Amino acid sequence: MQFTYSRSIRFSDTDAAGVVYFANVLNFCHEAYEASLTASGINLRSFFSGQTIAVPIVHAEVDFFKPMFCGDEITIALTPNLLKPSEFEISYRLFQEQTIAKALTRHVCINSQTRSRQDLTPDLLHWINGDRSVQ
Amino acid sequence: MQFTYSRSIRFSDTDAAGVVYFANVLNFCHEAYEASLTASGINLRSFFSGQTIAVPIVHAEVDFFKPMFCGDEITIALTPNLLKPSEFEISYRLFQEQTIAKALTRHVCINSQTRSRQDLTPDLLHWINGDRSVQ
Amino acid sequence: MQFTYSRSIRFSDTDAAGVVYFANVLNFCHEAYEASLTASGINLRSFFSGQTIAVPIVHAEVDFFKPMFCGDEITIALTPNLLKPSEFEISYRLFQEQTIAKALTRHVCINSQTRSRQDLTPDLLHWINGDRSVQ
Amino acid sequence: MQFTYSRSIRFSDTDAAGVVYFANVLNFCHEAYEASLTASGINLRSFFSGQTIAVPIVHAEVDFFKPMFCGDEITIALTPNLLKPSEFEISYRLFQEQTIAKALTRHVCINSQTRSRQDLTPDLLHWINGDRSVQ
Repeated sequence: MQFTYSRSIRFSDTDAAGVVYFANVLNFCHEAYEASLTASGINLRSFFSGQTIAVPIVHAEVDFFKPMFCGDEITIALTPNLLKPSEFEISYRLFQEQTIAKALTRHVCINSQTRSRQDLTPDLLHWINGDRSVQ
Repeated sequence: MQFTYSRSIRFSDTDAAGVVYFANVLNFCHEAYEASLTASGINLRSFFSGQTIAVPIVHAEVDFFKPMFCGDEITIALTPNLLKPSEFEISYRLFQEQTIAKALTRHVCINSQTRSRQDLTPDLLHWINGDRSVQ
Repeated sequence: MQFTYSRSIRFSDTDAAGVVYFANVLNFCHEAYEASLTASGINLRSFFSGQTIAVPIVHAEVDFFKPMFCGDEITIALTPNLLKPSEFEISYRLFQEQTIAKALTRHVCINSQTRSRQDLTPDLLHWINGDRSVQ
Repeated sequence: MQFTYSRSIRFSDTDAAGVVYFANVLNFCHEAYEASLTASGINLRSFFSGQTIAVPIVHAEVDFFKPMFCGDEITIALTPNLLKPSEFEISYRLFQEQTIAKALTRHVCINSQTRSRQDLTPDLLHWINGDRSVQ
């Protein structure tokens, strides 16, 4: 499945070099991830509170090709990919006409109490498979 | 004139108390201000780069009535108000069904080189008057 | 009691106007508040997790007198002040040689479950009174 | 050369899962980079304003081993490494007793006007070589 999300660059995203502060690009990716979870029917507040399970990010990386400026409208296309029963990664492409940046995050599902790995829940598998018709 | 702007609360907006970090509420207000400037035809990148004039915030205040959680959809209604030829304030109301917070920012127009006050530019007066038909 | 805290301005604090983004000044104030709580012997992790009591900010305001630039070393002097058995405010002065900004935050102590007001705990009264010798 | 930098985790660094928001870890790395530049005698305000040259980050990656909580005192050890006359990378290790995270950023020196690569300036080579006695 692929999900796209658009947002504009805000003044608070920028730094004194006049462009987006590098680490904020990962914020944009996480926003797109949140929007895709919501579109799949997942309740963000309970999902991210980590009461029973948590899905922390264990790795993130990003390549920057072009600077972004306040007011720019960008689109993020994301594709999740199951790696193991307890692990998935998401690849992101940020673009206007041309690619601005590419990023990747890797997530592991754990039991919040024991911190040990556990299989992804059905709603996360449903989200990864992109089957939005059944919920 | 009044302008409304909606956005959802993201995970990066929250803190370890499980709700939006207090100072981020002023970010939401500034986002709404940026959206209203864009709607009025002002180019954000050049406006905020402060090459010839700058319009720094000299005062901000905010009252918090309810906590906001990740995934909440909130709306911000803003009203700018001219105080002096060189100064305006913006009042903000953040709400879902009920009011969540109220905020105020005060802005002074200055010459970027001399840092002395100067009258607001025509495009800012146009924005304050909310006349969106002519641009 | 008065507490002082120094920190340098980082690149991530700035925006495309080349100076500190306005709302981040309240982050600096909160950092100073956290440092003063730590100096008083309060454990930040449990204090801010809000398990039994929470002390949310209900009002914040800030006046800006001078811009701050990346690399600037600033000092924040803070003074807490008890307003009611369940409420206190903190006033902040940010300065180098001259005052850069002044801010105020107002905090109300509540029961995390019922969200109703309750009296400040002894460790918070101890912090307000600035008696750092006994803990 | 190796440089170490310590800082405490603030409430604004955390998210609703109760730990540091993943992308903020790259902020901590950049803070350490700024502190090392300052220690080497480089003026941050002019360096990051990008008037004549700019040194944008073209790649960043981070691996997370342990969560960080509000109030934690962490140390960051960084080592810069020259890759080409116009390019360097910095590796970071964040730790308390044990390693919390590892990160890497890659930086390319460009002419701000033409956006074409240029060799690192003498003060950056001086910083990479860690010769702090001569400036």
